[in-house]
Formats: sequence, structure tokens, C-alpha cells
Amino acid sequence: MASAMDVPQATGSQGEFRDKLVAEGLLIPSSVAGVTGQGPAFVDLRQRLDARISKLVADEGAVAMEFPPIEPRHDMESVGYLTSFPQLAGSVFAFHGEDAEALALGEQAHAHQDWSGHLQSAGIVMVPAACHPVYPALARQQVPPDGITIDTGPAWVFRHEPSDDPSRLVAFHMRELVRAGPADTVGAWRDAWRDRALQFLQSLGLPAVFDEANDPFFGRSGKVLARSQRAQKLKFEILVPVGGDHPTAVASFNAHGDHFASVFGLGPVHTACLGFGMERCVLALLFTHGTDVSQWPADVLAELS
Amino acid sequence: MASAMDVPQATGSQGEFRDKLVAEGLLIPSSVAGVTGQGPAFVDLRQRLDARISKLVADEGAVAMEFPPIEPRHDMESVGYLTSFPQLAGSVFAFHGEDAEALALGEQAHAHQDWSGHLQSAGIVMVPAACHPVYPALARQQVPPDGITIDTGPAWVFRHEPSDDPSRLVAFHMRELVRAGPADTVGAWRDAWRDRALQFLQSLGLPAVFDEANDPFFGRSGKVLARSQRAQKLKFEILVPVGGDHPTAVASFNAHGDHFASVFGLGPVHTACLGFGMERCVLALLFTHGTDVSQWPADVLAELS
Repeated sequence: MASAMDVPQATGSQGEFRDKLVAEGLLIPSSVAGVTGQGPAFVDLRQRLDARISKLVADEGAVAMEFPPIEPRHDMESVGYLTSFPQLAGSVFAFHGEDAEALALGEQAHAHQDWSGHLQSAGIVMVPAACHPVYPALARQQVPPDGITIDTGPAWVFRHEPSDDPSRLVAFHMRELVRAGPADTVGAWRDAWRDRALQFLQSLGLPAVFDEANDPFFGRSGKVLARSQRAQKLKFEILVPVGGDHPTAVASFNAHGDHFASVFGLGPVHTACLGFGMERCVLALLFTHGTDVSQWPADVLAELS
Repeated sequence: MASAMDVPQATGSQGEFRDKLVAEGLLIPSSVAGVTGQGPAFVDLRQRLDARISKLVADEGAVAMEFPPIEPRHDMESVGYLTSFPQLAGSVFAFHGEDAEALALGEQAHAHQDWSGHLQSAGIVMVPAACHPVYPALARQQVPPDGITIDTGPAWVFRHEPSDDPSRLVAFHMRELVRAGPADTVGAWRDAWRDRALQFLQSLGLPAVFDEANDPFFGRSGKVLARSQRAQKLKFEILVPVGGDHPTAVASFNAHGDHFASVFGLGPVHTACLGFGMERCVLALLFTHGTDVSQWPADVLAELS
């Protein structure tokens, strides 16, 4: 039986890689698995990679739109995320009470007792993918006849799969390009970017390959959805080994057909997106080239200078 | 009687300013008040301001540490945030069930019905201030005898005060410098930065002033805490009018004594922090100089080039 808590944990070699990153100050653990801070060398690499991606995508003429890590609950309900991925969603609850109840909440919290009964939904959820807030935003403007590309910048996204695998974070940066345009052009756009992104990651010395993929749909019915997604070639991923032999997805390329366009009334367009998992890309670089950045190959350092 | 929902809403002139920012594509509203996206011109200004602050703080030799917008619930409980500010906290809930319950949740969500009963606390809360994750991180290393300064970068923080005032966002970027060091040095550090930050914001043409301040402690007992905080001069703010005559805090400067150090076992140190509200600084610039950035004074543009 499927359970929301079937989350992959670190293999032995992934655990060793994590311990090394923590010992060297690259990652900063907390008391909750997958809620992880970043030390100075990690921050520096992530920013250099982000700047390099800005150069890579410059000729796309994308419009910058940045969104907070939260979005309206209603939007997540509308796109069907809670049918497909209820186990990954994060919902924000808040306190709406008055003095007496606040006192009780504060005392329970102080004693590390359960105070969750004092909370109610705030109508807000964690953003699960950088592109999600883009679609309702596009609904507020006209999509030009020849289409539009949005650059989300390095947005924080949330997946509730607490794990001690350093590549499986509950919160991480996803930088996406989102394309909305005529149906017959969007698929070619995605495939062209898949090839460019693969070449780009290989230029950083990463042993990157691409493969067809499926999202982690929940439960028994999810198996059917996953097979259908693969059969229609709706999702590609770029994979790099991180922390052992296991290939880890560092970028993904998704075609949505008219799903988001019809939910948000974007007109007769299709949408597609590509996303870089920023922390996974940095981890792939650290695993491939070592944690001493000064010893990385000169051509890789030149790319990231 | 105090209620968690006593949140200031926009005055007439603040509402006019918000409508102008939305009409010109600087801000992108959503269906939830205070959950607001940023268009290209706003993103550009925020990034230029962030780069300028990096220059301002360069001589501090701060260590970069960046954290996700979520932190362990246990840490928020430990520092007493839920006693002082229960109305502002955001708690992340998630689904831990199996197939049959997932089906029910998905159907309710699809119909925009209440599915919150299927969720439980995930042991995670929204980060309420950029400095909060820094203290448990410092507990994992030794604070040097002469102290240490951490630069959080532009971190996303959360305050549950949904408002149609464009300056009062539920999620926004706060960039903080956090100082931990000998008790007799930390106060002077904060006061020196207060003066430098005031001069810096004035150099951007902002009519900035500083004032003693207090945090929005909840309820009846909160009034006592607020008076005590003011009497001890623990908090200063820099204020700029945004969207009318009302002065809006765009930066704050806080002394914590040994509070965080004792909770997290940092040794015999005190802590203090200063934080820039990045969106409020950008809004103050747009309100002061106008929404057409090309018409801003040359010396302001030079500072932000």
C-alpha cells in the first residue's frame, strides 16, 4: 500500500558524501532532515552557477518574474496537484485566535507540546515548482501571438520528502524557464532546450545523460499516470551520479499541453518548462570534481568564473 | 481584546500607490493579500539594491550563510517566538496518509472544499526573520573570541499579516547581518551599523530617519513587553514614507542580549542583528523617485549601477 512517508533515504555512499559536505562546512544541517543551510563555499558556487545560467539563457529574451515561496491554496487546488502529489504538498497554517488561546498556545510551544490544534489553514501553500505561480500571473496579461518566455530566477520550492540524502531537500532552489505559445512550437522549444542544457552541463565536466522520466505520482492510481506520462514523452530529465552510482535528476523538461492554459484561461496556447535543480547541480559538481574547488579542472572554473 | 487578525490595511494613498505598481507591471498580485510576485523592473531594482548592500557590508568580512524559508518547529518553540508573536507565525502541515485518504483529499481539493483535516504538522515552520536559522547553525561551530558576523543574503521570511498595503507582505526578502561576540562590543557594533545604514539610505535620496521602536508583541501582555523593549532601547528602525505620509520601517537594528546565545548554547556571547526589508527599500525608492526609473536623480542611479 502506498504511504506518503515512503521517502528514499541515503545509501551508504550518499551518507558519506553528506557527512563530508557537512564536515567541510558546505552544508549546514538542522534538526529536521532535508531542511539544510548552505555555508559560504556552497553559496558562492550556487551563485556562480546561477550567473552562468543567466548567460546561457540570455538569447531567449525571457521576462523576469519572481515569486515568494508561498502561493494561494486555491491555485494549487485548481491545477490538480493535490490529486497527483498529496504527499509532497506543504500547507501553511496560522493562528487566528485571541488572548486566552494565545496564552495556551505559547505555553504548549514553550514546553514543546503539541499546539497544532490552535491553528487553521491560512489559505496558503508552499510553491511546489517555480513555474506554478507564473500561470496565474500570465492570466493577468495577454500572451503575445508568438508566445512568451518567463525566467523565474532561482525560486525556493518545497517537496515534503524528508530524507538524509543530501540531494533530496525539502526546500531547494529551482530556476525555470517557462514557455507559453502556439501548440506547434512549444514542444520544439522544450526539445531544443533539453539539448542545450545537456551540452551546457557536459561543458561543466559533468557525466550528464538525458532520459525519459515520470513524476512521483502518489499511490496505486499514480502508477497509471506515470506510465501515461512516459508513453506520451511529456517529461525528460538530465541525470548525473551524485554521492554514488545512482543517477540523480539535476534538470527536467516538461510539456503540459493545454493543462495550465485551460485552468487559468491563458488562451489558445500550450505551455512547457525547463528547470534546473540548483542545489543538485552544485552537489553534482562537488561530487564529480571534489570538494576542493581550487583543484577543479581549469576549463570548468573558467565556465563558472 | 487582541485578535490575531487586527492587521493594518492600506490607506487610500497606499492603495493608489499599489494600484499604480500593479498597473505598471512592477508588482504581480495573487488571489491572497500580501502574496505578491515581482515583475522585471522590480526584480532588477531589488537585485541592484542587493548588490549595492554587498558593497556596503564588504569591509565587515561577514561569513555568508544562506537558509531555506523553512526551519525546524522546535527551534521556533525554543526561542519563544510563539509566546511573543503567535499571530505572525506560519506552520507547515503535510499529508501522512495512504491511498484511500489521499483519494478523499484529492476530491475535496478539486472541489475547493476544506481538506485541511487530512493534514498534520510537518515539524516545520516558516522562517520569521533571516537571523533565526543562524543561531542553531552557529551552535555547530565555535564562535571566535573576538566574535563573528554572518551575512544571510536576501532570505525569504514570513509574517502572517495579510494586507492590501503593498509594504506589508506575507513573504518578503530580509537581508541581515548577524553579530555574535563579547557582550561589551555587540551594542557598539549595532549602533555603528545603524548610523552607516541611515547614511547609506539617505545617499539613495530617501528621506530616512531613525527612531526607537518595538516589535508587534501579541495581546495584553505584549503591551508590557513592547514598553520594556523600548525602555531598554533594544530596537531601532529606519523609517521612510511609502505610499503616503505614513513612515514605514525599511530597516531594523536589534540587540538580543544573551537570549539566542543561551537558548542555543553559543557560549558567553551576546548577539545583535540588522536587517534590510528589501521589498520595502525598493518601494521607498519607487515612491520617493517615481516609477519611471530612467527619470531618477543621476546620483541615485549611479549608486545603484
